[in-house]
Amino acid sequence: MENVTIKYIKKPKLKDPILIEGLPGIGNVGYLAAEHLIDQLGGKKFATIYSKHLPSQVIVERGGVVRLVSNELYYAKGKKRDIIFLIGDAQASSPEGQYEMTDKFLDLAKELGVGMIYTLGGYALNKMVDEPRVIGAASSDSVVALGKKHGVLFIDGEPGAGIWGASGLLLGLGRRRGIEGLCLMGETSGYFVDPKSAEKVLRILASLLEVEIDYSELEKKAEEVENFAAKIADMAEFATKTSSPDDLRYIG
Amino acid sequence: MENVTIKYIKKPKLKDPILIEGLPGIGNVGYLAAEHLIDQLGGKKFATIYSKHLPSQVIVERGGVVRLVSNELYYAKGKKRDIIFLIGDAQASSPEGQYEMTDKFLDLAKELGVGMIYTLGGYALNKMVDEPRVIGAASSDSVVALGKKHGVLFIDGEPGAGIWGASGLLLGLGRRRGIEGLCLMGETSGYFVDPKSAEKVLRILASLLEVEIDYSELEKKAEEVENFAAKIADMAEFATKTSSPDDLRYIG
Amino acid sequence: MENVTIKYIKKPKLKDPILIEGLPGIGNVGYLAAEHLIDQLGGKKFATIYSKHLPSQVIVERGGVVRLVSNELYYAKGKKRDIIFLIGDAQASSPEGQYEMTDKFLDLAKELGVGMIYTLGGYALNKMVDEPRVIGAASSDSVVALGKKHGVLFIDGEPGAGIWGASGLLLGLGRRRGIEGLCLMGETSGYFVDPKSAEKVLRILASLLEVEIDYSELEKKAEEVENFAAKIADMAEFATKTSSPDDLRYIG
Amino acid sequence: MENVTIKYIKKPKLKDPILIEGLPGIGNVGYLAAEHLIDQLGGKKFATIYSKHLPSQVIVERGGVVRLVSNELYYAKGKKRDIIFLIGDAQASSPEGQYEMTDKFLDLAKELGVGMIYTLGGYALNKMVDEPRVIGAASSDSVVALGKKHGVLFIDGEPGAGIWGASGLLLGLGRRRGIEGLCLMGETSGYFVDPKSAEKVLRILASLLEVEIDYSELEKKAEEVENFAAKIADMAEFATKTSSPDDLRYIG
Repeated sequence: MENVTIKYIKKPKLKDPILIEGLPGIGNVGYLAAEHLIDQLGGKKFATIYSKHLPSQVIVERGGVVRLVSNELYYAKGKKRDIIFLIGDAQASSPEGQYEMTDKFLDLAKELGVGMIYTLGGYALNKMVDEPRVIGAASSDSVVALGKKHGVLFIDGEPGAGIWGASGLLLGLGRRRGIEGLCLMGETSGYFVDPKSAEKVLRILASLLEVEIDYSELEKKAEEVENFAAKIADMAEFATKTSSPDDLRYIG
Repeated sequence: MENVTIKYIKKPKLKDPILIEGLPGIGNVGYLAAEHLIDQLGGKKFATIYSKHLPSQVIVERGGVVRLVSNELYYAKGKKRDIIFLIGDAQASSPEGQYEMTDKFLDLAKELGVGMIYTLGGYALNKMVDEPRVIGAASSDSVVALGKKHGVLFIDGEPGAGIWGASGLLLGLGRRRGIEGLCLMGETSGYFVDPKSAEKVLRILASLLEVEIDYSELEKKAEEVENFAAKIADMAEFATKTSSPDDLRYIG
Repeated sequence: MENVTIKYIKKPKLKDPILIEGLPGIGNVGYLAAEHLIDQLGGKKFATIYSKHLPSQVIVERGGVVRLVSNELYYAKGKKRDIIFLIGDAQASSPEGQYEMTDKFLDLAKELGVGMIYTLGGYALNKMVDEPRVIGAASSDSVVALGKKHGVLFIDGEPGAGIWGASGLLLGLGRRRGIEGLCLMGETSGYFVDPKSAEKVLRILASLLEVEIDYSELEKKAEEVENFAAKIADMAEFATKTSSPDDLRYIG
Repeated sequence: MENVTIKYIKKPKLKDPILIEGLPGIGNVGYLAAEHLIDQLGGKKFATIYSKHLPSQVIVERGGVVRLVSNELYYAKGKKRDIIFLIGDAQASSPEGQYEMTDKFLDLAKELGVGMIYTLGGYALNKMVDEPRVIGAASSDSVVALGKKHGVLFIDGEPGAGIWGASGLLLGLGRRRGIEGLCLMGETSGYFVDPKSAEKVLRILASLLEVEIDYSELEKKAEEVENFAAKIADMAEFATKTSSPDDLRYIG
């Protein structure tokens, strides 16, 4: 049993491909954005990645059939450049595992001729965010310049804690292997999954990729989450009004 | 010292064997069910599995003699198909260990000619359960159909968090190696060991295996646990009645 | 860098040696007993064991000189049989590390001709213990019988959670390699280091080894700990008396 | 992918070099001291160390370009002896990783001809410290004597918990490979980064290295931290005065 196993359905021939990573993370922003883009561009799954560094679990799919926790590769044909998507159920469960899996992702990227990686994620502000902005980080000054041209904000000192997991390592390790990269982080509260933040990330990514996307489904999801959040806020306010000050101290 | 060591007492010759896994887990449901079935079918122990992925402990047996924490294999002769049981003291203590041990279990299953695996476990509802149902998950649609025929419930979105540990991985990894599998999960509170839930799981398993079982001992154990749970509930109610509302805030 | 390194000062020639393990654990009972016995028998250090499974620390000795966290081997000459002592600063920091280190200890025991292992430890009762008893566990029925002859108690179901760490694994893994073993566990509260419990363990061990020991220093240490514990108890009682019932709820 | 990778910019030729370690730790004392000294002596970076034992993160630098979490080597030319500096973003995330990385650091030190290591760190007192002292620990009595001559305090029993991480292991493992070492620990509260403690450490180090240093920037940083700490203290005092005794119980 290898530490990381890649099972190809069919290895595609791709034209100067771009890799887009949307593994689960903060607010599930990266995953939601990547998933929506795969859907919009008619992406096809071409490989599954298994690893003992992933959680030791199976997922039960509709109908009751299980599948092992995995990461997955999709591709979509573009006008100038093709696109590879890396999404999945989870990231590795240890730092060492994160390094090993990212290293394998880059072997694979090299093999498929990837020259550019976009990693997608959320940036937790730990407060409600009305208008999420998209913060960036890149592998080089020229990629920073590219990001700025498409509306990405680069703010000194943010994110102060660096970028954790595959979204960060793909850039850091990729750079050492000659692959450029740009990380797009949508601001998000960190309390809910955040389709609104995902939409903002995707609008910039669409501009970078020169593709047209219909956002209506993401917008519908964003509305659902907002309604849910509003209900929670109402309940909290009601609890505040009906509680004596004495009780309040124990909330939180 | 190997990572996983299998020590055979005697390698049995088995007829188209089924593997039944009942390692410790939620409510100890799977273990109780498997242990009772071994007892009822006169199962014989034929191998012990040691691993540094298991907890670094010894168990003290009646009489004061110790033995290393282990997993164990039993077999029982059936009419049409023989049965192998995998039970034990504990599961691996890390995700990587879970993957490695399950992989070894499947090597062993392959070697013994296993074509079908039943994994047994509990499904925690985090509330008291009067009539536990048996929820299923399977390696393929045809096994789902088989389960349904014997009364297993397949409910979309349950268990939402997937299936953790050997009960899940044996199906997920087994499927990739051509072994079909069915996981039977008895609903349980998650607060106590649950012989009642184990009985429900076992009734379905007996139907699948076409064996007759006497459930009286499991029923006796279930009664004991229910009496104990009732006492705890009485004590909690008493505490509530005799506490001032002021005190109550600090419970929990 | 090997996972476990044994550095010999001088490999001793030993007569049918017994290995005594007293690594740190509950109430430091095993360590205190072993340390006192080394002192009483004039034990000589003959090897140091380093491992990356031990905590990544150095100890600062009197005078300000550091030494790596380690395990140590001492020997003492006996009338009929010589004695090897295994003591040290710490046990391995992971289950896998515990298995690997114990395996190395047994390689070493085999090499030095060890046929019997005594492991020493504490058994936490989580309440104050006036007269600690010595509970045993052994590698075989004949060793149980030997222990009983010297006053060791073997109580069915105790310790219910098994025996953790080197004291357990040396017996469990040793048994598989043909070395007999007896674990002596002194009852202890688990709140303090417990020289009194160590003394009880040592009295039985002295009987087993047929050696005469002066216990006065252990008794002095035990008195110091008892005085300290009594002061703590007084302070708690005082706090109870001078607190309003309202305050009391927040203690603990 | 190796466990630890050293990437040289240019391997320097050094005269009887001393290694100074200032990796992040308690109060960031060691890092602040080492960073200031590199700055004062015009240190030049000559190698970067990557490892999967480090946190799986990238750092976002000013301008938005990322770099992998790493450790770094600098050198500065001295009159009699040259100096190598080991600083970085983080230490290894597991004990095993700490051992492996320190072992590589020592390979490197050996290769560059290092005969002496100074490790810098903080010693947490868990209370505010007005006049931090510098406590020492060393690889041998002669190095203890050297430290004393330059004002380092060696206090029996301190630090009681030993020295954790690279500052300790470099001495403990270095000693076994024939490299002497001295650890300088500045007393610090453990609540804040502590440039004042770093200054005290650096004054002794400067004396040991026979170099002249301008401390004004460290002093400025120390003032900033003191002002910040004073504000926090004021806020806490204000909260105390304006709270009813009833509220106070819930603070802390």
